[in-house]
Amino acid sequence: MDSLTLIAVISIVMAGLTTGFGTMGPALAEGRAVATALTALAQQPDASATITRTLFVGLAMIESTAIYCFVVSMILIFANPFWNLAIAQSAGK
Amino acid sequence: MDSLTLIAVISIVMAGLTTGFGTMGPALAEGRAVATALTALAQQPDASATITRTLFVGLAMIESTAIYCFVVSMILIFANPFWNLAIAQSAGK
Amino acid sequence: MDSLTLIAVISIVMAGLTTGFGTMGPALAEGRAVATALTALAQQPDASATITRTLFVGLAMIESTAIYCFVVSMILIFANPFWNLAIAQSAGK
Amino acid sequence: MDSLTLIAVISIVMAGLTTGFGTMGPALAEGRAVATALTALAQQPDASATITRTLFVGLAMIESTAIYCFVVSMILIFANPFWNLAIAQSAGK
Amino acid sequence: MDSLTLIAVISIVMAGLTTGFGTMGPALAEGRAVATALTALAQQPDASATITRTLFVGLAMIESTAIYCFVVSMILIFANPFWNLAIAQSAGK
Amino acid sequence: MDSLTLIAVISIVMAGLTTGFGTMGPALAEGRAVATALTALAQQPDASATITRTLFVGLAMIESTAIYCFVVSMILIFANPFWNLAIAQSAGK
Amino acid sequence: MDSLTLIAVISIVMAGLTTGFGTMGPALAEGRAVATALTALAQQPDASATITRTLFVGLAMIESTAIYCFVVSMILIFANPFWNLAIAQSAGK
Amino acid sequence: MDSLTLIAVISIVMAGLTTGFGTMGPALAEGRAVATALTALAQQPDASATITRTLFVGLAMIESTAIYCFVVSMILIFANPFWNLAIAQSAGK
Amino acid sequence: MDSLTLIAVISIVMAGLTTGFGTMGPALAEGRAVATALTALAQQPDASATITRTLFVGLAMIESTAIYCFVVSMILIFANPFWNLAIAQSAGK
Amino acid sequence: MDSLTLIAVISIVMAGLTTGFGTMGPALAEGRAVATALTALAQQPDASATITRTLFVGLAMIESTAIYCFVVSMILIFANPFWNLAIAQSAGK
Amino acid sequence: MDSLTLIAVISIVMAGLTTGFGTMGPALAEGRAVATALTALAQQPDASATITRTLFVGLAMIESTAIYCFVVSMILIFANPFWNLAIAQSAGK
Amino acid sequence: MDSLTLIAVISIVMAGLTTGFGTMGPALAEGRAVATALTALAQQPDASATITRTLFVGLAMIESTAIYCFVVSMILIFANPFWNLAIAQSAGK
Amino acid sequence: MDSLTLIAVISIVMAGLTTGFGTMGPALAEGRAVATALTALAQQPDASATITRTLFVGLAMIESTAIYCFVVSMILIFANPFWNLAIAQSAGK
Amino acid sequence: MDSLTLIAVISIVMAGLTTGFGTMGPALAEGRAVATALTALAQQPDASATITRTLFVGLAMIESTAIYCFVVSMILIFANPFWNLAIAQSAGK
Repeated sequence: MDSLTLIAVISIVMAGLTTGFGTMGPALAEGRAVATALTALAQQPDASATITRTLFVGLAMIESTAIYCFVVSMILIFANPFWNLAIAQSAGK
Repeated sequence: MDSLTLIAVISIVMAGLTTGFGTMGPALAEGRAVATALTALAQQPDASATITRTLFVGLAMIESTAIYCFVVSMILIFANPFWNLAIAQSAGK
Repeated sequence: MDSLTLIAVISIVMAGLTTGFGTMGPALAEGRAVATALTALAQQPDASATITRTLFVGLAMIESTAIYCFVVSMILIFANPFWNLAIAQSAGK
Repeated sequence: MDSLTLIAVISIVMAGLTTGFGTMGPALAEGRAVATALTALAQQPDASATITRTLFVGLAMIESTAIYCFVVSMILIFANPFWNLAIAQSAGK
Repeated sequence: MDSLTLIAVISIVMAGLTTGFGTMGPALAEGRAVATALTALAQQPDASATITRTLFVGLAMIESTAIYCFVVSMILIFANPFWNLAIAQSAGK
Repeated sequence: MDSLTLIAVISIVMAGLTTGFGTMGPALAEGRAVATALTALAQQPDASATITRTLFVGLAMIESTAIYCFVVSMILIFANPFWNLAIAQSAGK
Repeated sequence: MDSLTLIAVISIVMAGLTTGFGTMGPALAEGRAVATALTALAQQPDASATITRTLFVGLAMIESTAIYCFVVSMILIFANPFWNLAIAQSAGK
Repeated sequence: MDSLTLIAVISIVMAGLTTGFGTMGPALAEGRAVATALTALAQQPDASATITRTLFVGLAMIESTAIYCFVVSMILIFANPFWNLAIAQSAGK
Repeated sequence: MDSLTLIAVISIVMAGLTTGFGTMGPALAEGRAVATALTALAQQPDASATITRTLFVGLAMIESTAIYCFVVSMILIFANPFWNLAIAQSAGK
Repeated sequence: MDSLTLIAVISIVMAGLTTGFGTMGPALAEGRAVATALTALAQQPDASATITRTLFVGLAMIESTAIYCFVVSMILIFANPFWNLAIAQSAGK
Repeated sequence: MDSLTLIAVISIVMAGLTTGFGTMGPALAEGRAVATALTALAQQPDASATITRTLFVGLAMIESTAIYCFVVSMILIFANPFWNLAIAQSAGK
Repeated sequence: MDSLTLIAVISIVMAGLTTGFGTMGPALAEGRAVATALTALAQQPDASATITRTLFVGLAMIESTAIYCFVVSMILIFANPFWNLAIAQSAGK
Repeated sequence: MDSLTLIAVISIVMAGLTTGFGTMGPALAEGRAVATALTALAQQPDASATITRTLFVGLAMIESTAIYCFVVSMILIFANPFWNLAIAQSAGK
Repeated sequence: MDSLTLIAVISIVMAGLTTGFGTMGPALAEGRAVATALTALAQQPDASATITRTLFVGLAMIESTAIYCFVVSMILIFANPFWNLAIAQSAGK
């Protein structure tokens, strides 16, 4: 197994793992936040403006951690410096 | 086992894993959000418009993490840059 | 073990795993949603129309993640691009 | 170990695993749904028609995920394309 | 280890695993359903007819997932197509 | 290690595992059902006839899953078709 | 390592495992049943006859699963058909 | 590593495991039963005779599962039929 | 690695494991029992005699399972029949 | 596998793991904080200024741990001292 | 790796494991007991004498299981019969 | 694989693991602390000064454990004594 | 790998593990005890003397288990009898 | 792999693990303690002096276990007796 193949394989594995598992935490956290928002709305409908605004800020911050994972996956698939170097070396051989 | 086969195998494995496990978190989170929405509706039927709207925004954000996983799987199966390069190399040999 | 066999084996394994485990999350989430719907109905029978409609929308979104898994399994068994290529190569040999 | 045997072995393993573990989620979810239905009936006997109808729709959707698993198992045992091809190859040899 | 033995061994293993673990979910789910039924009966003895009927329908659906597992085990022990083919091949040798 | 020994070993392992682990779920489920029955009796002593009857039906259905496991174990020890065939082959050698 | 030793080793391992782990479920379940019985007695001392009777029936059924495990262990140690055959073969050699 | 040593090693391992892990369940179950008994006594001191009697019967049944494990350990250390046979064979050699 | 060393190594391992893990269950169970006793005392100081007596009987029974583990460890270290035999054999060589 | 490839592989693996798993904790923690904020807002709408301010300070501190992980990943991909040295050595060879 | 080294290594490993993990259970149990004692004191300050006395007896019994683990560790490090024998043999060689 | 590479690899792995997993505990703990602070503010808005001050002291202490982990990671990447020595040795060779 | 190195490696590993994991239990237990003490103080400020005294005695006993672990680690690093003997042997060689 | 490298590698691994995992327990425990302190302050603002003082003593004791871990890591990196000896031996060679 040459170096090029090995780096390709590892990049595929990590891209999948990082997105597949890394979105589990944010998903659960968003589910919890949305659930509580709904409970809060049912309990205090008059404060819906404040509740909705706070919810959206919170969801944005939680989503940011999911996006970190997605960004790392995309970097590993499409902008992988180790892969680029290996391609260059293999081409230059 | 040549490089082409290895990359194919790994891509299949990761495509399955990423979707199979990565949708677990969103599914559970959506179940929770829907469950709370129903509780909230039973408790405060007059606020059903606000509750339903907030629920749908929340479900959309949670679903987005499931879609990240599905997108990564589809990329690995149908638009895999490592696989394309390997095919090209193998054809050019 | 030649390449053809290996890809077949891996495809079988991932098809089973993706469906077998990937439907666990949606199943539990649907169970939770249905359970809460029943509680809500018992608590507020007059809102049954809204509750039932929200429940069905929610179930559809949760079911969608189970269907992603089933789709990936079916793709791996019946429309596997890696397998097709391997068959073509093996036939062309 | 020739290819034919290997594919047979893997198919047996995955058929068992997919059904054995894949039905755990639906079973637990159905248990939960039934349990809540009983609680709801005890609390609001007058709404038994709505509750029972909603319960059956919900059980059907949960059961569907168990059936996905059973279908994949049956496909792997009795309509396995990889196995059929291997038999054909082995017969043509 | 010849093919015949290997297929026998794997079939024994999967038959045991599928039944041994696959009945855990249904058992727990039935325990939960029965437990709630008893609570419901204690709370609302007048609705015992509806409760008992709903309980039995629910137990039947949960039991069905346990029976899927048992069926797969029995198929693997007594009606295994891979084993039958291997016997045929071994006899024809 | 000849085939006969291997099949014997695997049969012993699976017989133990299937019974040892497979009875865990039913035991816990029965414990739950009995516990709730006792709570229900303490709460509503007048409904003891209905409660006891429902409890026994439920215990019978839960026990059935334990018995599936025990049956599989006994089949593996005393009526194992793979073992019988192996004995026959070994005797006929 | 000859066959005789191997079967002895496996039988020892499974006898220990089956009893050691298989009694965990029943023990916990009995603890739960007894605990609830005590709570029920404290709550409704007048129904002690019914409660005690139901408790004993329930404990008997739970204990039965522990006894399945113990029986399998004893069979593996003292009435193991595979071992008996191996002894017979080894003596007849 | 001769057979005698191997059987000795396995017997030591299983004796320790069976007792070490097998007593965990009973210990936790007894802790639960005793804890509930104390709660019950504090709640209904007049029923202390019935509570104590039921507690002791229950503890005896739970302890019985711990004793099964201890018995299996002692059999494996001091009355191991496989070991006795191995000694006899080794002496007769 | 001769037999003597191997038996010594295994005995050390199992002595540590049996005590190290086997005392976890009893410790937690005793903690629970003591905790409930303290709650009961705070709730019903007049019944302190009965509570304390029941607590001590219960602690004794739970401690007995910890002592089973300690006894097995001590037997494995200081009165190990397999070790004694191995020493005798090694001395007699 | 030369040193350069090995360091590349390990860096890819750790970059993915650190971000993929390390963001799980912060995501869940932020979900909890946001959820409680919404509950608090519903309960005491007048204190929304204080609550929102405290929430944002808290989210910032929690996000900081997610950023530590992302920083380590970025260092491993784009500013890895071990990789730089290995490149230098490999170029100087 | 000679016998002496092996026994030393195993003794170190088990001494650490037994103390490191074996004190986890007692620590948690003591934490629970102390916590409940404090709750009880806050609820019934007049019974502080009885509560404190019962707490100390309970802590002593729980601590005893931690001390079993520490004793086994110390025996393995400083009074290990297997090690002493190995030293004697190695010196006598 | 020479020593230099090995130390580099291990340092990368541990730097990632220590930060990736070590920040999970602090993140969850801070989430809990912030959540309770928000609950407390909603319940007692007048004590907001004391609550906020105590919260910040607590967050600082919890953050300190996350910083220990980050410090160890940075030491391993940028000030690793083992790496420095290995470089020196490799240069001096 | 000579004996000296092996014993050093194992001692380092166990010293880290024993402290790293062994302090988890005490830390959590102390957290629980402190938390309950604070609740108790808030509920019954007049009993602060008794509560504080009991808390400190309890913390001391819990800390003792953490100290057992730390002591074992220090013994393994700085007063390891196996290491001392190995040094002596290696020097005397 | 020579001894020096091996000891360096193991020291790096254990330093990371001990800090990375060992601070998880204290972090969670401190989070719990701080959370309860905030609840207590909200419930009884007048006792803030006593509560804060008890909190700080408790945090100090919990932090001590985190510091044990950090100390062991620092000893392993910067004052490792096994490493020092190995350096001395390697220099003296």
